[in-house]
Amino acid sequence: MATSAPRVVLLAGGVGGSRFALGLRDALERRDAPQATIIANTGDDLWLSGVRLQPDVDSMLYALAGVNDTVRGWGRAGDSERVGEELQAWGAGWPWFTLGDLDLGTHLARTGWLRDGLTPTQVIERLSRRWPLGVSILPMTDDEVDTHVVLTDGTRMHFQEWWTRHRAALPPAEFVSPGIASATPAPGVAEAISSADVVMFAPSNPVVSIGPILAVPGVRDALRATGARVVGISPIIGGRVVRGMADVCLTAIGVETSAVAVARHYGARDRGGLLDAWLVAEDDAAGVAELAQSGIGASAVPLLMSDAAASAAIADAALAAAGF
Amino acid sequence: MATSAPRVVLLAGGVGGSRFALGLRDALERRDAPQATIIANTGDDLWLSGVRLQPDVDSMLYALAGVNDTVRGWGRAGDSERVGEELQAWGAGWPWFTLGDLDLGTHLARTGWLRDGLTPTQVIERLSRRWPLGVSILPMTDDEVDTHVVLTDGTRMHFQEWWTRHRAALPPAEFVSPGIASATPAPGVAEAISSADVVMFAPSNPVVSIGPILAVPGVRDALRATGARVVGISPIIGGRVVRGMADVCLTAIGVETSAVAVARHYGARDRGGLLDAWLVAEDDAAGVAELAQSGIGASAVPLLMSDAAASAAIADAALAAAGF
Repeated sequence: MATSAPRVVLLAGGVGGSRFALGLRDALERRDAPQATIIANTGDDLWLSGVRLQPDVDSMLYALAGVNDTVRGWGRAGDSERVGEELQAWGAGWPWFTLGDLDLGTHLARTGWLRDGLTPTQVIERLSRRWPLGVSILPMTDDEVDTHVVLTDGTRMHFQEWWTRHRAALPPAEFVSPGIASATPAPGVAEAISSADVVMFAPSNPVVSIGPILAVPGVRDALRATGARVVGISPIIGGRVVRGMADVCLTAIGVETSAVAVARHYGARDRGGLLDAWLVAEDDAAGVAELAQSGIGASAVPLLMSDAAASAAIADAALAAAGF
Repeated sequence: MATSAPRVVLLAGGVGGSRFALGLRDALERRDAPQATIIANTGDDLWLSGVRLQPDVDSMLYALAGVNDTVRGWGRAGDSERVGEELQAWGAGWPWFTLGDLDLGTHLARTGWLRDGLTPTQVIERLSRRWPLGVSILPMTDDEVDTHVVLTDGTRMHFQEWWTRHRAALPPAEFVSPGIASATPAPGVAEAISSADVVMFAPSNPVVSIGPILAVPGVRDALRATGARVVGISPIIGGRVVRGMADVCLTAIGVETSAVAVARHYGARDRGGLLDAWLVAEDDAAGVAELAQSGIGASAVPLLMSDAAASAAIADAALAAAGF
C-alpha cells in the first residue's frame, strides 16, 4: 500500500453515480485525500426547445451540492414546472419530459455560456463554483455525442425519448453515439486517468452511462496505460438492477443482467480489458471465484447505497480493493 | 370613400402599439372589416442566456390575447420569476432584466422552433394559434437586426441594456441596426403594404419602434408605392411622451419632442416622405395649420389611450382621416 490518500478518478452516470460520488467524497475526506475527479457521462445530453441539458452532470452537481430532490430521485428539491406547463400550452418541447423551473435556471445558464463560446468543460467549471462540491467534475468530452436508440423495428430516437417517454419499453436493437468516432476526451480527462492512483467505475448503467465514456476515443487507451488500479462497482445485485433500466440495455448488447456478466463485459485488464478489481454484492459472492478465472479480482461486499454511510462504506471497499 | 371595410396594415412597436392595436381590432370588427395586419418592430429583439426574445411581438401577442399584465404594463399577468432568480444565482443572464416564468415559456417555444429551422415569421404564426388574436402579426424582417445604442462617449451596447438597465439615462449619440442594410422584409410585409387600403403608424417610439421597421430595405419603397392612405398617430402629446423614453431617442436624432416635429420627421408623402395624414392630440391643435404647410393633413382628436374604447375611437379617427 502506497499512501492512504490516493488520487481517485470516478467514471459515472447520473443518479447511481451521484449516490456513489457522495460516499466517495466522504471516504476521501476522512483520509485527507485529494478531491476526486469525476468524469461524467454526457451521452444523455440533449437539446430541448433550444436549451442544452446535461442530465448526468446536473444530477451529480445537485447531489453533491445537497440541493437534489431525494424523494423523487432526480432534479432540484422544491422545484415547480411553471415554464414546462407553458411550453406544453404552446405545443412546444417534449410534453413527457419534466422541465423543472429551478433546473431550467441551470440549463439556461449553461446554454447562454455555450452561446458565449464557453466549452462544456468551462461551463461545468462555472457551475461548480456556486456550491462547495468537494470534487471536480469533468465532462467525458466537449463534443456533442448524444446517444440515440435504434429499435428492433428500425425506428431511431434520442436516448431521452426512449428512456423518459417510453420508459425503455420499446425493444432496443442498438445504442449509437453519432459523432463519437471523431470526439476527443475533454481537457483533463486523459491526464486525470494517467495521474490517478485509483480509477473507479461507479455502479452506473454499463451501456448508456459508462459505455459512452469508454467509447470516447482515447479513454480506453488511457485506462489501459494508467498506473492506477481500476476498480468497478457492480450496478447489478442478485441478477437485478437496483434502479433504472440497465437490464434492457444489457440485453440489447447481448450481456446477461448479472454482476459477473457485467464484469466480463468490461474485461480483465491483464487480458485486454479494463478492470483490475470488481465489487459484487454479498448475494453475488458465488461469482467471485468465477471472476477469478477471468482474471478479475472480485470481492463481495454490501452494495446497497441505502444512505450516505452505506455509499461511503462501498467507496472504502473500492479503495481497499485498489490497495488503499 | 370606397368601402367602410378597409384592409388595414399597422406598423407598431410594443406597449403603445399593443394598446392601439386593441382599439383598431375593435374598430375594424364593428365595421366587419378584414383583420388588420400588424408589422411588428423586431429591433428590440435579443438573445438572453441562449434564448431568443422578441419583446414587441410578445407585448402585442399578450395584449391581443388578453393575458398581459395591465398593471405593470408589460409581460404576462400573474407571472413569477423563479427561473430568473436561479439565473441570477448562477451569475448568468442579465440581473437587471426581468425574465418572467410564463414569459419564458414563450421564449423557449420560440427558441426551440427557431432551432428546428422555422423562421421568425413561422414562429409568430405558430404563437398566434394559441389564442384568437383577431389580427395577423408579421415581424418586419426575419433577419436579426437587433438595435444597438452608441453613447456620446463611444460606448456601444444592446438597445435593451440601454433601455432596461440604464433606463435610457446614458446620453445616446446614435442608434444602429447591424445587418439591416442587407435585411429583407419578412414574407408578406411588402405585399400587405401594397394591397392595403390604409397603413397606420401606431403611436410608438418613432426612433426605436417605427424607425427600425422603416429602415428595413424595401419598406419605405412599399409605403411610397402603395395605393393605401398612410396615417400616423402622434406618440407625443403636448410636447411630452405619454409612456417610454421617446424624447431621449428623438433628441439623439435631432428631432424635437413635439407632435409637429415627429410628423415632419416622417415627412409628407407627396414631398418624398411617408405620411398622408397625421393625428395630433387636442392640446396640439395649433400644429394642424403648421403641418398643412408641410403637406401633411393633420387632425386634432383625443389621443390618450386611457381604455379600450378610447383606443378604438382613435382608430376610428385614423380610419376617417384615411377616408373610411
